[in-house]
Amino acid sequence: MKFTVASRLAYEVRETTVFILNVEAAALRYQTILSERLDLTPALAIDRHELDGGTRLVRAVAEPGAFEVEYRARVALSPYDADPASLGETPVADLPLEVVPFLNPSRYCQSDRLARFAFREFGALPPGHQRVTAICNWIHDNVDYLSGSSNSETSAYDTLVQRAGVCRDFAHLGIAFCRALSIPARFASSYAWQLEPPDFHAVFECYLDGAWYLFDPTRKAALQGLVRIGVGRDAADAAFATMFGNAVMTGMQVSIAPLDEVEDEEPTLRAVGIA
Amino acid sequence: MKFTVASRLAYEVRETTVFILNVEAAALRYQTILSERLDLTPALAIDRHELDGGTRLVRAVAEPGAFEVEYRARVALSPYDADPASLGETPVADLPLEVVPFLNPSRYCQSDRLARFAFREFGALPPGHQRVTAICNWIHDNVDYLSGSSNSETSAYDTLVQRAGVCRDFAHLGIAFCRALSIPARFASSYAWQLEPPDFHAVFECYLDGAWYLFDPTRKAALQGLVRIGVGRDAADAAFATMFGNAVMTGMQVSIAPLDEVEDEEPTLRAVGIA
Amino acid sequence: MKFTVASRLAYEVRETTVFILNVEAAALRYQTILSERLDLTPALAIDRHELDGGTRLVRAVAEPGAFEVEYRARVALSPYDADPASLGETPVADLPLEVVPFLNPSRYCQSDRLARFAFREFGALPPGHQRVTAICNWIHDNVDYLSGSSNSETSAYDTLVQRAGVCRDFAHLGIAFCRALSIPARFASSYAWQLEPPDFHAVFECYLDGAWYLFDPTRKAALQGLVRIGVGRDAADAAFATMFGNAVMTGMQVSIAPLDEVEDEEPTLRAVGIA
Amino acid sequence: MKFTVASRLAYEVRETTVFILNVEAAALRYQTILSERLDLTPALAIDRHELDGGTRLVRAVAEPGAFEVEYRARVALSPYDADPASLGETPVADLPLEVVPFLNPSRYCQSDRLARFAFREFGALPPGHQRVTAICNWIHDNVDYLSGSSNSETSAYDTLVQRAGVCRDFAHLGIAFCRALSIPARFASSYAWQLEPPDFHAVFECYLDGAWYLFDPTRKAALQGLVRIGVGRDAADAAFATMFGNAVMTGMQVSIAPLDEVEDEEPTLRAVGIA
Repeated sequence: MKFTVASRLAYEVRETTVFILNVEAAALRYQTILSERLDLTPALAIDRHELDGGTRLVRAVAEPGAFEVEYRARVALSPYDADPASLGETPVADLPLEVVPFLNPSRYCQSDRLARFAFREFGALPPGHQRVTAICNWIHDNVDYLSGSSNSETSAYDTLVQRAGVCRDFAHLGIAFCRALSIPARFASSYAWQLEPPDFHAVFECYLDGAWYLFDPTRKAALQGLVRIGVGRDAADAAFATMFGNAVMTGMQVSIAPLDEVEDEEPTLRAVGIA
Repeated sequence: MKFTVASRLAYEVRETTVFILNVEAAALRYQTILSERLDLTPALAIDRHELDGGTRLVRAVAEPGAFEVEYRARVALSPYDADPASLGETPVADLPLEVVPFLNPSRYCQSDRLARFAFREFGALPPGHQRVTAICNWIHDNVDYLSGSSNSETSAYDTLVQRAGVCRDFAHLGIAFCRALSIPARFASSYAWQLEPPDFHAVFECYLDGAWYLFDPTRKAALQGLVRIGVGRDAADAAFATMFGNAVMTGMQVSIAPLDEVEDEEPTLRAVGIA
Repeated sequence: MKFTVASRLAYEVRETTVFILNVEAAALRYQTILSERLDLTPALAIDRHELDGGTRLVRAVAEPGAFEVEYRARVALSPYDADPASLGETPVADLPLEVVPFLNPSRYCQSDRLARFAFREFGALPPGHQRVTAICNWIHDNVDYLSGSSNSETSAYDTLVQRAGVCRDFAHLGIAFCRALSIPARFASSYAWQLEPPDFHAVFECYLDGAWYLFDPTRKAALQGLVRIGVGRDAADAAFATMFGNAVMTGMQVSIAPLDEVEDEEPTLRAVGIA
Repeated sequence: MKFTVASRLAYEVRETTVFILNVEAAALRYQTILSERLDLTPALAIDRHELDGGTRLVRAVAEPGAFEVEYRARVALSPYDADPASLGETPVADLPLEVVPFLNPSRYCQSDRLARFAFREFGALPPGHQRVTAICNWIHDNVDYLSGSSNSETSAYDTLVQRAGVCRDFAHLGIAFCRALSIPARFASSYAWQLEPPDFHAVFECYLDGAWYLFDPTRKAALQGLVRIGVGRDAADAAFATMFGNAVMTGMQVSIAPLDEVEDEEPTLRAVGIA
């Protein structure tokens, strides 16, 4: 299925600021970038780098004044069509060793401290895609999706107690549970079809039977319509913009639409509230 | 300078256990492995993988019974001989983008939460190697090195309040301060010359003027005698052994000696207490 | 029902140390002290004070050398014999105002942060003794009683995530849940009949229909055989001994027996492990 | 010195709500209430209770609609005029035992975890009023006073790391340090002369040489013009209003002025921002 995605970030730069941007669709096995363009206004020189996981970083140095970043792309997604019931967990003895670091705890996913809980609650379930789905169902049923209930310091440890959060908190908790059960898991930011209101969306992926599979415990977006952007240990690795200097965001728009639904392949960007 | 290093880990395996071992000298620019051998007893098949940072993982699946891992190597170190006063910080605008993830907070190094402290205490100091040295001096002077004062859950956040820890806590705090100041920093486990009693040792590295430089806020080992093993975001990435199964450690020995001091190039392994 | 209780604490005092002791049966509505004696060896002058909740503090200043505290008492307990099903919660509008502070969060019982969880899990249950019993059942079923799994810094917040603890952790979690639901709750240390091995025991009390009722989510002791000692906000208010100086505990014995079971009314003190 | 104080709280009550109010000047040794009146609109029946520390609680049950609380009082303060240099610490051996609970850690003042820091930083200073002043100076110099930098969950532990907070965080940190050094300390909310903008203010008190002395590490108000309201373990014990039901604050005004400065003894109430 093909999608057209777009985002526009607007800033007021007060002092020279280095931006590390991560808004471009990631270079991943399951998504093919058919076309894309990134426009900076003013037009600044950029550096680019693709991290090992497929995350694509762009750096620009903006001088004081208005600064805008606009990205548009057409992306073809070919998500797995495996029968979930047939997808098992890969034993640690068989995991590719480069996947092993995704079993480690990270800033927002203290899998080491959630281990007993994860084993008590999910340890006896049939392993594989079904178990991760059960984890997502548990999160959906036991954590309230509530804007403003968490902040940039909130971790899976907190969410498990406080029982409220937003998409990134849901993803962190899912990741922490999976790692505690020896299922490699990673965080993904995304353009998310059918998410209302439109915004960047956080989901997670698990390594099952030789590939990374997507999960969204919020149930807010269509899994077959997730164009991933940043892929990493947790949200610390997937900020859409990291700034070194002095700048404030003044506007943000995000959109995604199936390609055949848009005439001119140029979706209308809709405004997103800025927290 | 050349060193011979060795370690021996002994386990009693109770149920089939997957070991992910990380005891071999890392593949790094400043250390050359002249020779090495890894012996498992019983002799098991292994998988190997070198992570991007140079960390070398070995996996073995041990059946119930005694299991031993012995590693011996000769390593040539060519640490920097730059004048510390001349080593500056690399502006974020000029950092290789692959180094940028080492500015992110991690499990044990919540640089996001220590930012104000770091700026207040170290923000006005002259940047570069001198500033990181000042950070190490501060840690040495303000945190007590005290065995048993911390555990596997202790993070830089805790150490900053509790003011006690061991080498890994000292390294975590140094890393968190540096990242908060936009200096890329990473954790390194090591064979540490002159460390008494001999043990694996944790230090950290900062990216300054184009290369990673070593720092040891504990001042317990000789910087020119650190053979690095695991290099990563923090201690979560550098365990000498991670076990999936049921096994208990029954003995551990670690040694390092300058190569010209040892006649037969086979240092005597000395016992290390097992926490 | 009548009980004879005893405890003996032995210390090696290294420097002059002020002891604040709290081993005597509390002055409470449901327990009558028939006789008691407190012996210090050497025989030191003491100060006494009874706190509002009934906790009785004794202060002594011990000089270097051996120091022993022995307490023996006969106590009659007249616990409630109300039908649990008939015991409701007292609406906040009707609570005695002196009880209101027991709705506040405390060091180990962060009821403010556990509120959403408590409401989700217990909010819809029929109020009163039955609801607190359901809370105790939940704790018993969802937290492992495991010696050594917690320490003096462990709070209800941690226990809810880590799912392991000892009696004081079980009590703290129960208190936090109750306060979050506007049920006044307080901590009680106790001599606990049938507790094996014998030791001081932590339970909690809730204010229901005009009186404080006992609950023990560990199910390790007989509720009708709990002689309360320290009553307060949480464990911070109920230490059996707080020392200001330099002394180490060298022995501890605790005992309790029904009065008619003991011939000479002098139970044999049995040793208790010192953590 | 005499002051006239006033406060007005306005609420929109949506469902029947129990209010526990704490806006009246506390019944304390150093402040004499010359006259006072509390007006509720609508005029509701109230219950009153004075807690042991002198905090005066008022309870009212408000039905849906507008609800206002207005308090006006004239208070004479007779603060200590001892020479600070002569005020020593009371040894634990000599403390009134009812003061001992103010050495215990509390929800927001984890003195148990800050002990090493407190000893390192303040342990060697001359004891007494001077030491507590040094603690206040340290807080003033090392923590930024920054509105919005903390929230109702922020504790002394966090403030020590994050180095920012508001008056209640400054007070909590001071309390935690003092308790760690065996100086009894308690929290006090207050009407604070010369505080700009006018608002309720949080300070703390230490027990020195037989009495409680005031300290304000924010240096934002005049110590001789603090009319205390709620006195307790920490902010958990001193909320100006606790609500059980469903109501939202719609307005708040606080004022204080020296009595001889006001003609009609009725200070003009000025609006206070509602967080």
